[in-house]
Amino acid sequence: MSLIVQKYGGTSVGTVGRIESVADKVMGWRENGHQVVVVVSAMSGETNRLLELANAIQEQPVPRELDVLLSTGEQVTIALLSMALEKRGCAARSYTGHQVHIRTDSVHNKARIVDIDDARIRKDLEQGRVVVVAGFQGMDEAGNITTLGRGGSDTSAVALAAALKADECQIYTDVDGVYTTDPRVVPEARRLDHITYEEMLEMASLGAKVLQIRSVEFASKYNVPLRVLSSFEDKISGTLISAEDAEMEQALISGIAFNRDEAKVTILGVPDQPGVAHKILGPIADSNIELDMIIQNVAEDATTDFTFTVHRNDYDKSLAIMKETASKLGAREVTGDTKIVKVSIVGVGMRSHAGIASTMFKTLATEGVNIRMISTSEIKISVVVDEKYLELSVRALHEAFGLDQLA
Amino acid sequence: MSLIVQKYGGTSVGTVGRIESVADKVMGWRENGHQVVVVVSAMSGETNRLLELANAIQEQPVPRELDVLLSTGEQVTIALLSMALEKRGCAARSYTGHQVHIRTDSVHNKARIVDIDDARIRKDLEQGRVVVVAGFQGMDEAGNITTLGRGGSDTSAVALAAALKADECQIYTDVDGVYTTDPRVVPEARRLDHITYEEMLEMASLGAKVLQIRSVEFASKYNVPLRVLSSFEDKISGTLISAEDAEMEQALISGIAFNRDEAKVTILGVPDQPGVAHKILGPIADSNIELDMIIQNVAEDATTDFTFTVHRNDYDKSLAIMKETASKLGAREVTGDTKIVKVSIVGVGMRSHAGIASTMFKTLATEGVNIRMISTSEIKISVVVDEKYLELSVRALHEAFGLDQLA
Repeated sequence: MSLIVQKYGGTSVGTVGRIESVADKVMGWRENGHQVVVVVSAMSGETNRLLELANAIQEQPVPRELDVLLSTGEQVTIALLSMALEKRGCAARSYTGHQVHIRTDSVHNKARIVDIDDARIRKDLEQGRVVVVAGFQGMDEAGNITTLGRGGSDTSAVALAAALKADECQIYTDVDGVYTTDPRVVPEARRLDHITYEEMLEMASLGAKVLQIRSVEFASKYNVPLRVLSSFEDKISGTLISAEDAEMEQALISGIAFNRDEAKVTILGVPDQPGVAHKILGPIADSNIELDMIIQNVAEDATTDFTFTVHRNDYDKSLAIMKETASKLGAREVTGDTKIVKVSIVGVGMRSHAGIASTMFKTLATEGVNIRMISTSEIKISVVVDEKYLELSVRALHEAFGLDQLA
Repeated sequence: MSLIVQKYGGTSVGTVGRIESVADKVMGWRENGHQVVVVVSAMSGETNRLLELANAIQEQPVPRELDVLLSTGEQVTIALLSMALEKRGCAARSYTGHQVHIRTDSVHNKARIVDIDDARIRKDLEQGRVVVVAGFQGMDEAGNITTLGRGGSDTSAVALAAALKADECQIYTDVDGVYTTDPRVVPEARRLDHITYEEMLEMASLGAKVLQIRSVEFASKYNVPLRVLSSFEDKISGTLISAEDAEMEQALISGIAFNRDEAKVTILGVPDQPGVAHKILGPIADSNIELDMIIQNVAEDATTDFTFTVHRNDYDKSLAIMKETASKLGAREVTGDTKIVKVSIVGVGMRSHAGIASTMFKTLATEGVNIRMISTSEIKISVVVDEKYLELSVRALHEAFGLDQLA
């Protein structure tokens, strides 16, 4: 007998019919002798409905009260799912975040989980019940209702799995796992059976939005085996995300991620002097704009060029700030481009294999793709290319690294 | 400065616009220097929407989970009202029943309030905040969410007023007070400025459905002055419900209540013997049918006749039970009638004035209304008459006791 924590997202519980299907799925695990804790999101559409009510009153709703409001969404789902389980003769108990003391900090709308009191859940499990917990929500030390921000239900599930030392945390979603790349771009993309936490973090942060980054970090920190699988299929496979396994044969590259949301800003001919990086990037950071890639080149004439990427939504603001900075520092020119994308190859295999970067660059060169920026980390290499080359680049790299072959 | 607990029902908070109006009303009290605690119901229609979801899964939803589900309705309202107050620059805090420890027993769907921990609310009030509490809900000793049953928000408000020793508990509703009788039957009906708890209890239980009976009992027990007033009007008057006041000049009769929901069952010619009442009424009570009026006459031939009234919904079942009982006891006949109504005059004044009953009977006789049953208590006299005489009887009595005159 093992203990499984399952999480079903908004689409998986979007209607009463879907909730009944989830109950069937849970029953299947129970009948195979497992203990099950289920974490659910709000029914799809419900959070937006509540937000509209709030926005009709306040454009920027008071954060504390927004949490009180939004947390009702999951509460509706836990009650309905528990009813569906009880109807099937399965003893079930629903709990809000408040009731099982999912303790968070006090940052309303994006709180972080601090602690979970698992005593009540353990007692129910021992008594043979399925425990259904509202995702996305908790309470702070003073007993105020908090929410973890959108997608926080994944984190709730992982945190519960960690607290309960569950054998596996299963994230049911509308895709059946993590793919080598987006199948809409590369039809030959394959579902990965296994991927490490680190790889998943790189894939997720680069735009493969299957799981919340924070939930993967949490799983990694507490070494909770995480499985992504489809709530609309019966087969139990999906993709297992876990720590690196020495015995496992590693592929060189696990996947190719890309991100269409970036824009590039360049400042040219800045007189080079100590502290210039801070003078250029400081005003951007002060405006709460998140920088992604940053590149600096020193030219021969003792001036320096800076290029960085930001989210496209922040492009206009960044450009304006940079123009102001340029005139202060006596820089030559500020340019920018929104028609760029970032393409990255990710894999723990590159730690122990040389030549991966050169394979990547050669592949892109062969296809006539001009690389505009390069950035590397221990397990990923990212390049910025013109937007029009996105599909071409991803397909070429997918083939070059053999990702379309059966593992 | 006084402390006011206000309760706004579902219609009063039925839309975002109505919630804004409630916020305006609360601001008015605040600006006059009062401390305010607001208790709200679910937005009208919301409880039914939730019930439909539950019923789509279970015809008889698990009571514990139904409470988890339904309690979200008020939680939405407290958040929205607090936002509306904050928007007006008024510091506000919302609380669920769970958060302010409205402790109840464990009877899901119709729990009773046991205790309220008022520390948190007091602290907020001292800090100048308006406190907004979800009505209708609480938690049992084990921390399970409970609800008080429909209309329980009135009781929440009175219980909070009692715990906080509030100066007044105001129940805002869609009528502007308690009337001498239903204005749809008697256009001359007047709003009462004042009525005692006892009178209100008799009026309410007899069908003048302005307030939940339980909330009036609660108010009476803890001597909380209760005011019923309209949430759609600006004037603050309504009807004050409080303990009897010796200095107050009492009207003989405060009002005339009536009830169209009753049906009458008669068993004739039951051989009279000790314990016969129990043999007749026991099977009715065992079927969870509530008896209202009960009358027994002993005939000259050592047999006895019983007549009782039940809710019309229980009529068929009662008649069937009674026919079975009749054959067991060797009674002569069982008859019944659903075309009856109960009309009652209510007033603490009748304690100290004789002749009230005879005025009632004479008035009805003059109008040619045949009385089918009579039942009396200390402050009310009820008669059962044919349904067709309802309006005639109520109007005649209203005039006979001078209720259409200005007090």
